[in-house]
Amino acid sequence: MNFKMIFYTIGNMLKVEALLLILPLIVSLVYKENTYLSFLIPIAILTLVGFAISFKKPKNRTMYAREGLIIVGLSWIFISLFGALPFVISKEIPNFIDAFFETVSGFTTTGASILTDVEVLTKGMLFWRSFTHWVGGMGILVFIMAILPSSDGDTIHILRAESPGPQVGKLVSKIKVNARILYLIYFAMTIIEIVLLLFGKMPFFDSVVHSFGTAGTGGFGIKNSSIGGYNNYCQVVIGIFMILFGINFNIFYFLLIGNFRQALKSEELRWYLSIIFIAIALITLNIMISDTTRVFATTLKDSFFQVASIITTTGFSTTDFNAWPELSRSILVVLMFFGACAGSTGGGIKISRIAILFKASGREVRKLVHPHSVQNIRFEGASVKEDTVKGVFAYFSIFIIIFVLAVLLVSLDGKDFVTNFSAVAACINNIGPGLSLVGPMGNYACFSYFSKIILLLTMLVGRLEIFPILILFIPNMWRNK
Amino acid sequence: MNFKMIFYTIGNMLKVEALLLILPLIVSLVYKENTYLSFLIPIAILTLVGFAISFKKPKNRTMYAREGLIIVGLSWIFISLFGALPFVISKEIPNFIDAFFETVSGFTTTGASILTDVEVLTKGMLFWRSFTHWVGGMGILVFIMAILPSSDGDTIHILRAESPGPQVGKLVSKIKVNARILYLIYFAMTIIEIVLLLFGKMPFFDSVVHSFGTAGTGGFGIKNSSIGGYNNYCQVVIGIFMILFGINFNIFYFLLIGNFRQALKSEELRWYLSIIFIAIALITLNIMISDTTRVFATTLKDSFFQVASIITTTGFSTTDFNAWPELSRSILVVLMFFGACAGSTGGGIKISRIAILFKASGREVRKLVHPHSVQNIRFEGASVKEDTVKGVFAYFSIFIIIFVLAVLLVSLDGKDFVTNFSAVAACINNIGPGLSLVGPMGNYACFSYFSKIILLLTMLVGRLEIFPILILFIPNMWRNK
Repeated sequence: MNFKMIFYTIGNMLKVEALLLILPLIVSLVYKENTYLSFLIPIAILTLVGFAISFKKPKNRTMYAREGLIIVGLSWIFISLFGALPFVISKEIPNFIDAFFETVSGFTTTGASILTDVEVLTKGMLFWRSFTHWVGGMGILVFIMAILPSSDGDTIHILRAESPGPQVGKLVSKIKVNARILYLIYFAMTIIEIVLLLFGKMPFFDSVVHSFGTAGTGGFGIKNSSIGGYNNYCQVVIGIFMILFGINFNIFYFLLIGNFRQALKSEELRWYLSIIFIAIALITLNIMISDTTRVFATTLKDSFFQVASIITTTGFSTTDFNAWPELSRSILVVLMFFGACAGSTGGGIKISRIAILFKASGREVRKLVHPHSVQNIRFEGASVKEDTVKGVFAYFSIFIIIFVLAVLLVSLDGKDFVTNFSAVAACINNIGPGLSLVGPMGNYACFSYFSKIILLLTMLVGRLEIFPILILFIPNMWRNK
Repeated sequence: MNFKMIFYTIGNMLKVEALLLILPLIVSLVYKENTYLSFLIPIAILTLVGFAISFKKPKNRTMYAREGLIIVGLSWIFISLFGALPFVISKEIPNFIDAFFETVSGFTTTGASILTDVEVLTKGMLFWRSFTHWVGGMGILVFIMAILPSSDGDTIHILRAESPGPQVGKLVSKIKVNARILYLIYFAMTIIEIVLLLFGKMPFFDSVVHSFGTAGTGGFGIKNSSIGGYNNYCQVVIGIFMILFGINFNIFYFLLIGNFRQALKSEELRWYLSIIFIAIALITLNIMISDTTRVFATTLKDSFFQVASIITTTGFSTTDFNAWPELSRSILVVLMFFGACAGSTGGGIKISRIAILFKASGREVRKLVHPHSVQNIRFEGASVKEDTVKGVFAYFSIFIIIFVLAVLLVSLDGKDFVTNFSAVAACINNIGPGLSLVGPMGNYACFSYFSKIILLLTMLVGRLEIFPILILFIPNMWRNK
């Protein structure tokens, strides 16, 4: 185990976090808020600690998969621990566990909040809270690699551990699209959303933070009614951008370089859009039948927005979907697990994994009739390796095992089954709001500190796709071989 | 597709069902009930139809896996359709869908009931209801093969399709234990339970039907309070026998021939008993902490009984576990999916599959550190083939897919999420009672006919381990190649 290299990388990352905190500092100064010390102190601490542990460049720079995973896992935990400081110092979230929960929820782009009234926060804090979404969406370490000169070749293990989606998702990227180009696309799309929201007369500050929340598929809002208070135009813009940010970024790259054929050929994209379409149709129908007094256009808009918000794992809301009829609620729960496309900023199991899961299951059924004709599964125009299929199955199983374990641990609080089940589902899939007590009108304040820690761990497990967090809990992973 | 052979086998099975119906007929005559015609008419119909379609032995007796699966799937549907007739004719369950639900629930050893008051049924009907558990527990077609001279060699596909558990479960059976010996063990154990219950002063009729319910891990009771009204001795006897009937029958065979080493070496048995032990300990602790006024001995007895009842997928109850604290309720839900051992009469995913799932998931985690050391998984002292591992993963995925689909369809009724989720869980895992509206004090009468049909299909899917039912819904499986 190359501990020196692990410390060195984490140190660098803390220095970058110090830089990131300058933005909310500026915001608080611009709005003349009295919170500048709450940002300055963490910046000082991060700079000191960062330089202290990354002072000397290690001679041995060899890193294997294990080091990559551990760096990613630890980085996300440390960046959240330090990122919680502004909330604690300003006493806007006085309890450290609560602030830590909120920050993990931010960086993992979950959007689950322990705040009962978000509107009392200062603009600087609201900005930092939403900015964590934007940074976490594309990946903190990917961000570092995008801004630092990429001199070292050993970063592949970090990239692999931090980017979402199964290995097969990378089949799309026949050209090696580098982190910087992806971040440029991400940046440009965020700017476009801000501009479009400004056109809709959304205030500048609101446009920026909501665009951060959309881009990272995070979902932290700045109003207690989330997006519900804004006009229909703004709701539709955010809805469309949520769907866009749930698409594999390689596809935007292909569009950018004019390779439309390659972009539109994506099988995952077709699955993704089909699922969205079917879900919107079913939910609209279900709501209209259950309550014939509803206006069709409003119902369609709300179900479009909510399906987009849940499948991309953003978690914004325009209406209290907890009050929807049972079928619609259940469809949303299923979409929570599906998640967005691999290589997007969205969470969940990912559409490509779901597709492979379905195809591999279908093959098992076909085997009943033709036991001796072993066929390979095809996805994205190529045959999927059997190791990848087994990997997807294993991922799904481990995901379910962790999910069940978390539900059991959270149920120690004695809340009802729907709350526990949907809270864990909303956290592990990085969505935010669930059903019952944690519905769009509720929040996570009601849970015990123990449950909050379990839930924030599931957020990390979901965002980092299990292994970078799981590896931290396996004692013999730490041993030097 | 060898349709002639399919008809011929189903015809034979209907004749056997006519024979089986003689037993409840005798019961109704002994208790001087006015329901003998309700049994005589179905006996006549079954005999006629049975002889009509199995009149001529087909010349071409070749059967492949496909034919085996279809025979098993259709047989279970037909035997339930005809088995529902006594309830309908006697008007004790006047609606045919309800009677069909109850009969499928019986044969699949689920024990889910649409009856709001079971105590008004006549003894003949109660006997038939519980007898279906006993017949369904070991398998209807296995039963036929056990009583008929096994002249044909082509029965292997039927046996394979009807017996529960993954192929690896059969590793235990190094000697080919034939169906007849297994049925003799089953019969003997049932008799022992009846005798032990008689010692506990349970009335004779009650002892017999409850032993049927235990042996088949079914769970139909004859009192509205299930087993709650009987004394502690009887409850403990039934608890122990539920656990025994959840064990792979090959183990009893090894014990019978004096091969104790082979019997106790079973890894699945050790997993099974450990899970039971841990679950009882956690639930007892959880209940005692949440309500300190409880008596420890009663709590221990109730959690022992309920854990045994749920993990073996029997479904008897001595207390309303729906009123237990949330952690205990969630543990029971998890146990529902675990199920009993392969090769037992229990349902669920089966302990051996769960064990392989855990081991294969663990291997995937180990691969992170040592990517190039591919190790085989070991189970029951042998290394598990990669095809089996993939089969278990696929089984799990298809199971979850069907489960989710059923929850969505049932949620059309608009019941709450806990009711829908636990009803489908209780049906697909062949347990019977769930939580909320379908808890031990509730029943399935509240569902629409559409939901009842979905639920009874999940019972068949669970009991026959998916494929014999799934194949019936795949159009191109019916085509002659």
